[in-house]
Amino acid sequence: MTEDQSTLPNIEGLVCAVPLGHSEQIVLGHGSGGQMSHNLIARLFLPSFDNPALRAGDDAGVVIPQPGTKLAISTDSHVVTPLFFPGGDIGKLAVCGTVNDVAMMGATPLYLTAGFILEEGLHVEVLEKVIASMRSAAAEAGVHIVAGDTKVVQKGKADSLYINTSGVGIIEPGIVIGGNQAQPGDIVILSGPIGDHGIAVLAARGELGFTTDIISDVSPLNHLVAAMLKAGKKSVHVLRDPTRGGLATTLNEIARQSQVGIHLNENSIPVQPGVSAACEMLGFDPLYVANEGKLVAIVAKEKAEDVLNAMRISRYGENTVIIGEVKPDPAGRVLMRTAIGSSRIVDMLAGEMLPRIC
Amino acid sequence: MTEDQSTLPNIEGLVCAVPLGHSEQIVLGHGSGGQMSHNLIARLFLPSFDNPALRAGDDAGVVIPQPGTKLAISTDSHVVTPLFFPGGDIGKLAVCGTVNDVAMMGATPLYLTAGFILEEGLHVEVLEKVIASMRSAAAEAGVHIVAGDTKVVQKGKADSLYINTSGVGIIEPGIVIGGNQAQPGDIVILSGPIGDHGIAVLAARGELGFTTDIISDVSPLNHLVAAMLKAGKKSVHVLRDPTRGGLATTLNEIARQSQVGIHLNENSIPVQPGVSAACEMLGFDPLYVANEGKLVAIVAKEKAEDVLNAMRISRYGENTVIIGEVKPDPAGRVLMRTAIGSSRIVDMLAGEMLPRIC
Repeated sequence: MTEDQSTLPNIEGLVCAVPLGHSEQIVLGHGSGGQMSHNLIARLFLPSFDNPALRAGDDAGVVIPQPGTKLAISTDSHVVTPLFFPGGDIGKLAVCGTVNDVAMMGATPLYLTAGFILEEGLHVEVLEKVIASMRSAAAEAGVHIVAGDTKVVQKGKADSLYINTSGVGIIEPGIVIGGNQAQPGDIVILSGPIGDHGIAVLAARGELGFTTDIISDVSPLNHLVAAMLKAGKKSVHVLRDPTRGGLATTLNEIARQSQVGIHLNENSIPVQPGVSAACEMLGFDPLYVANEGKLVAIVAKEKAEDVLNAMRISRYGENTVIIGEVKPDPAGRVLMRTAIGSSRIVDMLAGEMLPRIC
Repeated sequence: MTEDQSTLPNIEGLVCAVPLGHSEQIVLGHGSGGQMSHNLIARLFLPSFDNPALRAGDDAGVVIPQPGTKLAISTDSHVVTPLFFPGGDIGKLAVCGTVNDVAMMGATPLYLTAGFILEEGLHVEVLEKVIASMRSAAAEAGVHIVAGDTKVVQKGKADSLYINTSGVGIIEPGIVIGGNQAQPGDIVILSGPIGDHGIAVLAARGELGFTTDIISDVSPLNHLVAAMLKAGKKSVHVLRDPTRGGLATTLNEIARQSQVGIHLNENSIPVQPGVSAACEMLGFDPLYVANEGKLVAIVAKEKAEDVLNAMRISRYGENTVIIGEVKPDPAGRVLMRTAIGSSRIVDMLAGEMLPRIC
């Protein structure tokens, strides 16, 4: 939080660029995870379902069902196309996506639910492969799928199959992690190169026009989070996985929630050459391309080194780097010092770049 | 449990009528909630995701995340068509369906998640109406929607909108409710007339060929359950809401889980005249038609009167009746004494009667 917050304009309130009128229709951009999704949530969902857990705007809702029990609860529907892509499939994605959302509250994910919407005519073999993937990802994460549901819709009323996973995790006492906890002086840490998932899925769709060896980074990050919390329990202020909308959107969310300025160094943000090349050809900025096995952490400066070291010796954290720092200003904004030394504002994703990436 | 269980054939093992081969495709019947759904779960889901909570086969998984905390967790995807029908809509259905699944474990539902899959082109006004419905149902049930997710798919890849709701509730100490808890001597109680939801949705589709004033019974039953548990906490052995597959399928599930015989009196099962007439014209048996605001309870005989009375003075329980009793035999089966005095076996729903009813 900035000290002089009261004197600053409420940037959060000024960014509702796309009004939602009654005659308006839902477009793909409303599912982007970027600004249009945020507007939809702000206009329709929040006013109706308002409660502290939802209002917090984090990856999972934090609740206390009884004294001494603190839970993180999350949900995600998965509509990725194609179902299978280099490095994963919709099943692995569904398990990891929700495990990660729960873990990003500093919670230990314990239980998942799985709700399937199947299109009539789907081959049982496809479903078997997806389920095997879910099983293997759940085993790696150490979570149990404790409830399920299957619906079947007529041919042409779904695209093969959609999976919703919801997750419940437990938060140990003393952990306070949330998008509003970033503080000036904190260090911004990223667990590895960005954009792999988005480019891998695009490649699997045959939309690149060339071949690439990029594979999706889809992974369960809960054990990495556990290692980080062991190294600096109270020093980890924010955790978030930059999925839809990419790193830029995620950091903008945090900057707004905490009303701080996040300052990045372009040179320090790792992007694999294959992702770079694909983005250049397609006119994409890797900052906005989805990840499914990366996290960004905002950590108190004095413990940043310890957390960084713990990450680098953990699975999925080997390529962790520091990418920037938190300052009071410009509150609610993300700034990037470019490779040539100039500075630019990095905005949230406006519309939709890559539909159905997760 | 029956005393002489060991001498009885394992009926559960004999009913896998529809094998699932690799070349087989998913058909609507796999989402019926009846025998084909059970086969799909037994063949694909259970072997992969096996754990005690899932294996129990109840409406919600029961877990203990830490000593002293017992939770019920449930999930349901909703694909009903049309979105709006007499008495409710997909939003009310999504909230009540999951609230009820959690409540059927004797839990107090506290938190819901909501995952939306929207079809591109959906009018925002439609979504607004559905959300208003969810809000109102959640308020009545006293639950909070603490996490949400929105995905948008291209036109033709969904049918307007699908909603997944998952729910978490807390189970007080001393409550042991589950499909395997029915005991010989217990009384079977039904909270009111059956088949209203299914017929109301069919009518809304214009598939009846005549008009009817039947409205869906979709309602949150958690307060009714609370009143029942107050009247006979340890005497309520089984609770279940007979949704997809209807009363017949639900009672078959319980008979199998508890390995008891459930004996019904046809005369005592209430069916509204409009539902009766519609079923007669369509060739449906109301025993298999979905309900969304009814529950069946299996209660120890000595407390049945108390529980019954508590239900009758509760909302949604006014028309509660006793419909039968539990005996040791035939284990795993439901028998019906018909109006003319003969006896017949009531089976589980085999395939699909009314697709996309919830």
